[in-house]
Amino acid sequence: MRSKITVVGAGFVGSTLVQRLAERDYADIVMYDIVPNMPQGKALDLLQAGPVLGYDSLVTGTNDYADTADSDIVVITSGFPRKPGMSRDDLLKKNQEIVSQVTEQIVRYSPNTIIIVVTNPLDAMAHVALHVSGFPRERVIGMAGVLDTARFRTFIAQEVGASVRDVQAYVLGGHGDTMVPLSRLCTVAGLPISQLIAAERIEEIVQRTRDGGAEIVKLLGNGSAYFAPSASVLQMIDSILLDKKQIVPCAVHLEGEYGLNHLFVGVPAQLGSKGIEKIIEIELTDSERAALQKSASAVQELVDVLGIHN
Amino acid sequence: MRSKITVVGAGFVGSTLVQRLAERDYADIVMYDIVPNMPQGKALDLLQAGPVLGYDSLVTGTNDYADTADSDIVVITSGFPRKPGMSRDDLLKKNQEIVSQVTEQIVRYSPNTIIIVVTNPLDAMAHVALHVSGFPRERVIGMAGVLDTARFRTFIAQEVGASVRDVQAYVLGGHGDTMVPLSRLCTVAGLPISQLIAAERIEEIVQRTRDGGAEIVKLLGNGSAYFAPSASVLQMIDSILLDKKQIVPCAVHLEGEYGLNHLFVGVPAQLGSKGIEKIIEIELTDSERAALQKSASAVQELVDVLGIHN
Amino acid sequence: MRSKITVVGAGFVGSTLVQRLAERDYADIVMYDIVPNMPQGKALDLLQAGPVLGYDSLVTGTNDYADTADSDIVVITSGFPRKPGMSRDDLLKKNQEIVSQVTEQIVRYSPNTIIIVVTNPLDAMAHVALHVSGFPRERVIGMAGVLDTARFRTFIAQEVGASVRDVQAYVLGGHGDTMVPLSRLCTVAGLPISQLIAAERIEEIVQRTRDGGAEIVKLLGNGSAYFAPSASVLQMIDSILLDKKQIVPCAVHLEGEYGLNHLFVGVPAQLGSKGIEKIIEIELTDSERAALQKSASAVQELVDVLGIHN
Amino acid sequence: MRSKITVVGAGFVGSTLVQRLAERDYADIVMYDIVPNMPQGKALDLLQAGPVLGYDSLVTGTNDYADTADSDIVVITSGFPRKPGMSRDDLLKKNQEIVSQVTEQIVRYSPNTIIIVVTNPLDAMAHVALHVSGFPRERVIGMAGVLDTARFRTFIAQEVGASVRDVQAYVLGGHGDTMVPLSRLCTVAGLPISQLIAAERIEEIVQRTRDGGAEIVKLLGNGSAYFAPSASVLQMIDSILLDKKQIVPCAVHLEGEYGLNHLFVGVPAQLGSKGIEKIIEIELTDSERAALQKSASAVQELVDVLGIHN
Repeated sequence: MRSKITVVGAGFVGSTLVQRLAERDYADIVMYDIVPNMPQGKALDLLQAGPVLGYDSLVTGTNDYADTADSDIVVITSGFPRKPGMSRDDLLKKNQEIVSQVTEQIVRYSPNTIIIVVTNPLDAMAHVALHVSGFPRERVIGMAGVLDTARFRTFIAQEVGASVRDVQAYVLGGHGDTMVPLSRLCTVAGLPISQLIAAERIEEIVQRTRDGGAEIVKLLGNGSAYFAPSASVLQMIDSILLDKKQIVPCAVHLEGEYGLNHLFVGVPAQLGSKGIEKIIEIELTDSERAALQKSASAVQELVDVLGIHN
Repeated sequence: MRSKITVVGAGFVGSTLVQRLAERDYADIVMYDIVPNMPQGKALDLLQAGPVLGYDSLVTGTNDYADTADSDIVVITSGFPRKPGMSRDDLLKKNQEIVSQVTEQIVRYSPNTIIIVVTNPLDAMAHVALHVSGFPRERVIGMAGVLDTARFRTFIAQEVGASVRDVQAYVLGGHGDTMVPLSRLCTVAGLPISQLIAAERIEEIVQRTRDGGAEIVKLLGNGSAYFAPSASVLQMIDSILLDKKQIVPCAVHLEGEYGLNHLFVGVPAQLGSKGIEKIIEIELTDSERAALQKSASAVQELVDVLGIHN
Repeated sequence: MRSKITVVGAGFVGSTLVQRLAERDYADIVMYDIVPNMPQGKALDLLQAGPVLGYDSLVTGTNDYADTADSDIVVITSGFPRKPGMSRDDLLKKNQEIVSQVTEQIVRYSPNTIIIVVTNPLDAMAHVALHVSGFPRERVIGMAGVLDTARFRTFIAQEVGASVRDVQAYVLGGHGDTMVPLSRLCTVAGLPISQLIAAERIEEIVQRTRDGGAEIVKLLGNGSAYFAPSASVLQMIDSILLDKKQIVPCAVHLEGEYGLNHLFVGVPAQLGSKGIEKIIEIELTDSERAALQKSASAVQELVDVLGIHN
Repeated sequence: MRSKITVVGAGFVGSTLVQRLAERDYADIVMYDIVPNMPQGKALDLLQAGPVLGYDSLVTGTNDYADTADSDIVVITSGFPRKPGMSRDDLLKKNQEIVSQVTEQIVRYSPNTIIIVVTNPLDAMAHVALHVSGFPRERVIGMAGVLDTARFRTFIAQEVGASVRDVQAYVLGGHGDTMVPLSRLCTVAGLPISQLIAAERIEEIVQRTRDGGAEIVKLLGNGSAYFAPSASVLQMIDSILLDKKQIVPCAVHLEGEYGLNHLFVGVPAQLGSKGIEKIIEIELTDSERAALQKSASAVQELVDVLGIHN
């Protein structure tokens, strides 16, 4: 009755996700990476934490996709980070190639799996995985909104001195500069934040949320965030694997919802054992709708570069 | 009633330990590193995982020891790894300098804290921290045995196809080639492993345990183990902070126990709110005693290089 | 650094709360009851679950208040249930007597503790404990709103097929027929329930929430709810003991807030290591305000029977 | 991918087990009882704790076996307690009737399930369930040894002032006066207790373990232990459902092992997704073997009364 989860890419997001999954102790986990021996080394380290923490998850590091066969869920984290001198389109093309190759292999060994894409640029890469896999949209999901929302919630909690558990928030749209934090629906213990925080301060927090990834990149000097991103994927996997039917913001291939078509955009979706089980359409104000449209256009620009025709 | 824990060194062992502590949600945590902005970046990433995972631990990254004031527990992870071309003694001297400086600052701001040393070479560095702090030995503890034991238990569990929870084992002595895995007392669900595994196979497993750290270094290509080491420190902190009085193998400054004096050597010790509350003396066979003596001599050699006189 | 918690009354709410606290493993727990041997028996049973579940909490059953000395938190669950033929006022007087006696003893041995009252009728009994203890209102809190809210959230989640984690709700007012579930502020994943559930159906759910305790009493045939009530107290203790500063609805002695005075009424309050650290005033609609006033009047009627003059 | 577990009997062991399972959040749970409405009431109370504790387990109370269909695991807790004036054989016959009827219904709706028997007298009732179900012995397991062991471990930990986590112990034989606590293999942090506790004191602890259930019955005055028993079943379910392959002492239908035949006797067994995956044969001393034989004879006497012929 144990499930099987594969994480492709044993970088920091990937390996920290494997750590989190191992500690949940409800599945066996395969960590694939193209670098020889490295995923095996991280897997061994994770196995050796088992006796101390009390988990028995079988963690396997591998360089062979055959080991990923019959996974219930596959998470794709592989990809290049943007480097100085690399154009946006160069990065896009490079990661398209990686995600395409990974997806082909995944589908070959696990034709019924659910794919969660983490590679950036997120919405475009989810598009690639959907196209290459030929899967129905229920089974290809992009992780972005949980993370963006977590950042928004953290900043709000700090601002008002509340527990993060008490802050509820939503972020729509693409994962990037054009994301749409819905401050109107953000509440602290059920109270609209407009009752608690001045409007211009909210706007600053919204902007800081948009720049959330970049803020950490800048502080770290070298590398990017991985603790919160891996936790965000964990929540999605929990909801799918345990059929919890939580509603979480994630990148979904829209087919008419929110007036958008053939595009991955972040919206609230209910995740259960079938993957995406329901897309929630929030009534938006005019300005929110305009912002979402702008965000969708930015995603469309990227997709156009990919040269994929549906 | 929340406690305060400081972790010095925001490398992988240090920051993964902070992650684990944050998830326990029972203390506020300060992560110090000499590198500007980096610990702040990791702390921010960890805070942003809070809303997803439901914890409210206040994680602070800092470059200023003043922020560590009044810590209940301080963990020292800072230090250089051994690099090609660097002699053992060069490494020893360099890390002695680091651990000395860290200890001075720690003691200045938290004169009543309990120090857990993780920097290698472990036993020698614990010696440095004890000497510089002037603390009673109850409050300076080295982390090595929990990790070594976890590796031994993992290999035994794999060998017999058992849950890691069912394997109990002890490793004595210094953290290194001379460590003394007590295979005689190792049991699987209470059964001596001698009933389950052939003697020469046990010997191979013992050797693999001794080389446990090196095996992972080799596989990773770049870097060393941090998942199991950070979990091992967590268990020690749990026992101290929650006064669980667990008996765990750790590096303790012996003052006559096991016939050894003025030396940090790995032995079973009971950890509670006062730090080391009891040292457990296991009756050893002659060959185990000889192996422990040999291990102690190896530690003594390192200590001699330090030039510390008690 | 371990804390100490006393639970007075080893009935089902009390002993299940002790079970939950023992499993948290962050405090030692004293379970007091007037019945000889019984709390000792339950404590022993709970200790014997420790090796299986891995906790080391010291659980002590006692018939002697001296064992409760220096508790950080004391929970009062003792009291009679209403029996056939007993008038409301008879019950009130009987439980007033019990809560008075308990409070005297508690205060004698733990003058700095924080008291959480669970005995019914809740708001009136909290009044008794405040009066007898002479404590500032920060340290006498009634548990009702978390439970009422949990019931409301459960019914909403079932109605829309969502995870209970996604439902946020508030219930104000006294614990009883006049409680005020704020359906206006109830959201599912941030969406107002008015967008998801028809108005008359919401009204049915509100009514079912008001009758939540009675529904269970009727089903059980013998006895009343204890799983959700004990979980609700646990959340309050978590927020206090770990200084999480969560905002939870609980019975607070109002001194002007919401236009009410000298009365325990359920409102959102922030709980931290000092007890009640902040009372949150939600802007209410006229009809909500009227309902809250009506609820307060019902509490006032009970308090009048008690014959306490502030 | 969620599993389904049925618990038959909504008394204290049964309903506390359902509570523990609900909190694990990995399965949906059906709680059956013959008493109308009562299991529904407890189920509702448990559902209402979900929003507070964050679980989404679907807990269903029922009086209809059809709701138990396709369970992965079924736990039988139903049965009469021994009452004054009732002979041992009367009790045996009464509970045989109950367990027979339950087993018939269970098998009808879940022909591939794994049955865990908790009803007393345990070994005899497991015999009944095996006989009536016609299942292979891998799928009918009695819970006793985990509980007896937990009691033994608790007493040892108290005696030496250690964490319960550090005490390992085994109890063989029938669940009752003739159980065989293997004090020889009992260790504290790997140390044989013979090095830590005087022989006659160990004997007292052994005797107290044998009388463990009765001690609690006497203290409670009314009712018997349920916290530790339900935790013990939880551990067995964890190992089966998550295929952890833990080795736990449980009542197994022996077919030659330990020189015993056609009898349920407590021995160490490895539990995984197939149920009993391996029976561990510990080398016993002569006196241990004699004690086990005596225990088996006591079980045989009960089985003889049942009138079952294999």
